[in-house]
Amino acid sequence: MTQKQLILKERPNGIPDKDTFAFREVEIEEPSEEEVLLKTLYVSVDPYMRGRMSAAESYVAPFQVGEPLSGGIVSQVIESKSDQLSKGDIVRGNLPFQEYHVVKANTVHKVDTNGLSPSVALGALGMPGLTAYFGMMHIGEPKENETVVVSGAAGAVGQIAGQLAKQAGARVIGIVGSDEKATYITEELGYDAAVNYKKGQLDQQLKQACPNGIDVYFENVGGDIGDAVWPLLNTFARIPVCGAISSYNLKEDEQDIGLRVQWFLIKSRAKMQGFLVGDFADKFSEAYPILAEKVSSGELKFEETIKEGFSSIPDAFNGLFSGENIGKQLVKVADVD
Amino acid sequence: MTQKQLILKERPNGIPDKDTFAFREVEIEEPSEEEVLLKTLYVSVDPYMRGRMSAAESYVAPFQVGEPLSGGIVSQVIESKSDQLSKGDIVRGNLPFQEYHVVKANTVHKVDTNGLSPSVALGALGMPGLTAYFGMMHIGEPKENETVVVSGAAGAVGQIAGQLAKQAGARVIGIVGSDEKATYITEELGYDAAVNYKKGQLDQQLKQACPNGIDVYFENVGGDIGDAVWPLLNTFARIPVCGAISSYNLKEDEQDIGLRVQWFLIKSRAKMQGFLVGDFADKFSEAYPILAEKVSSGELKFEETIKEGFSSIPDAFNGLFSGENIGKQLVKVADVD
Repeated sequence: MTQKQLILKERPNGIPDKDTFAFREVEIEEPSEEEVLLKTLYVSVDPYMRGRMSAAESYVAPFQVGEPLSGGIVSQVIESKSDQLSKGDIVRGNLPFQEYHVVKANTVHKVDTNGLSPSVALGALGMPGLTAYFGMMHIGEPKENETVVVSGAAGAVGQIAGQLAKQAGARVIGIVGSDEKATYITEELGYDAAVNYKKGQLDQQLKQACPNGIDVYFENVGGDIGDAVWPLLNTFARIPVCGAISSYNLKEDEQDIGLRVQWFLIKSRAKMQGFLVGDFADKFSEAYPILAEKVSSGELKFEETIKEGFSSIPDAFNGLFSGENIGKQLVKVADVD
Repeated sequence: MTQKQLILKERPNGIPDKDTFAFREVEIEEPSEEEVLLKTLYVSVDPYMRGRMSAAESYVAPFQVGEPLSGGIVSQVIESKSDQLSKGDIVRGNLPFQEYHVVKANTVHKVDTNGLSPSVALGALGMPGLTAYFGMMHIGEPKENETVVVSGAAGAVGQIAGQLAKQAGARVIGIVGSDEKATYITEELGYDAAVNYKKGQLDQQLKQACPNGIDVYFENVGGDIGDAVWPLLNTFARIPVCGAISSYNLKEDEQDIGLRVQWFLIKSRAKMQGFLVGDFADKFSEAYPILAEKVSSGELKFEETIKEGFSSIPDAFNGLFSGENIGKQLVKVADVD
């Protein structure tokens, strides 16, 4: 019996297109001792994957041409030859993008979804949720009555980051790319204000939304959006740098050119710090229960944008860069049995 | 009796020129009770003063047009009506740029020069020395065998910063703008290598000089020099941002445009932090004895470039931006009695 697998056909130069991805049929293997057979339920597409499609050195090894893409997947165990997992269990793993996997049981993590959709293990209670938590709470450190700005505020990470800042007592402003997202973050998530950068004059809009300046800027986007923030930084501002999605599809001969930040950092004695969620691995066990409690109780809200079918992965991925998603972008591959 | 005073005649737009500065004659006052009459020995000219010449908001109030410039001055007491200071004492203060001052004795600090020239209180044992100490040791935190790069490496701050990193066991590379400065930092200060950015291909030169990447970048200059550093940052690199002298003479309608830094910070999970020496005021009493001991013993070396005469202050100031100075730039106004 065969299954679909998504491979990197060619490295993209600029925006990934139809030559970037290809599907192929591969055999579904049989599990041996200590192994399980998994059926993919949800595939996570994330902006950082764009970096892995290039050959350039990065913090994670490049995908190989002709080999499958891989990333966060939530699956259900449909056959188990291990004591560690039972048929029906929901697991999360970092796995090749295909419809079924045979893996050692100890290479995936059992997910207790606590009555929530299993997809939450790829979003609010997965990598994006933890990223928001550590970036905001360990680098941003928002304090009562401070002004916090989040770019990509309606995205997988931003939606959690803003709420955490709000719960810390800060005034929180989100930068988004549509009126629908602006409504989402103010009406659903409790952001104090939203700025839609597509309406232009971002610097004026931001200045109006932040009359007391900016104490924490949670950076997901970069580009013109960061440039509009720097002049508004307050003394001792903190800038967790989580992403720079506006630059990920630059062509190989293009550079990310804009305002240099040095003078702004000096003037405000601000701290700007790049981070990856993995840097905080030793603190996952501290953060996860906090997030799980807040998500289960409804204190932390989140949205998911779900495309249907394994073959929609390329579209779902590219949609991240045109801002199609509200909240976490996922691809649903199969139903839970 | 009158004396010379240096005033801000017009705010400069771009490089300060003959319309920026003017000298005028003002009366020398008589000291009252608790006051002292001071004779200026040395005037410090520093890049940060350029920011104060503009009306724009900064971390320190702008100079006022028609009013004297001010900054670090070392003086000798020539008449005292206070118990706190005696005739002949050497003091340091933040004072208007003129040849004599009458001040309350408690507004200046007595300097124990320990056999060194009084000018050292404006350089290695003054604001630049402390700036280097806190930026390098509290933000840069160089570790044994790490690679540390200092821009403006032969300047007032850079010359101290590089030596402190070297003493912490790091490999230290300085970026300078002349072969004379390259020789100074490698032969006199013990830097491991120098890169002269005026020879071009800075990115190639730096890559050769830093085969193991860059762990700490002490930023004094900004512009193309920072841009060449970002691609070489190692994981968890630290970037104390002390100055951005390349941008200080931009015209009002010009912006500092270059490589955006976000992606580089993410990729290396680097921390970039602006600071002012005053942020560490509560630690001066910890740092000063360390620096004083190292300077007195000769463990920390330093150079001074001294122009003669009060009327040379404008030239000395402008020379900072064309890189004329090696080490601390000073103006000598009078001899010690």
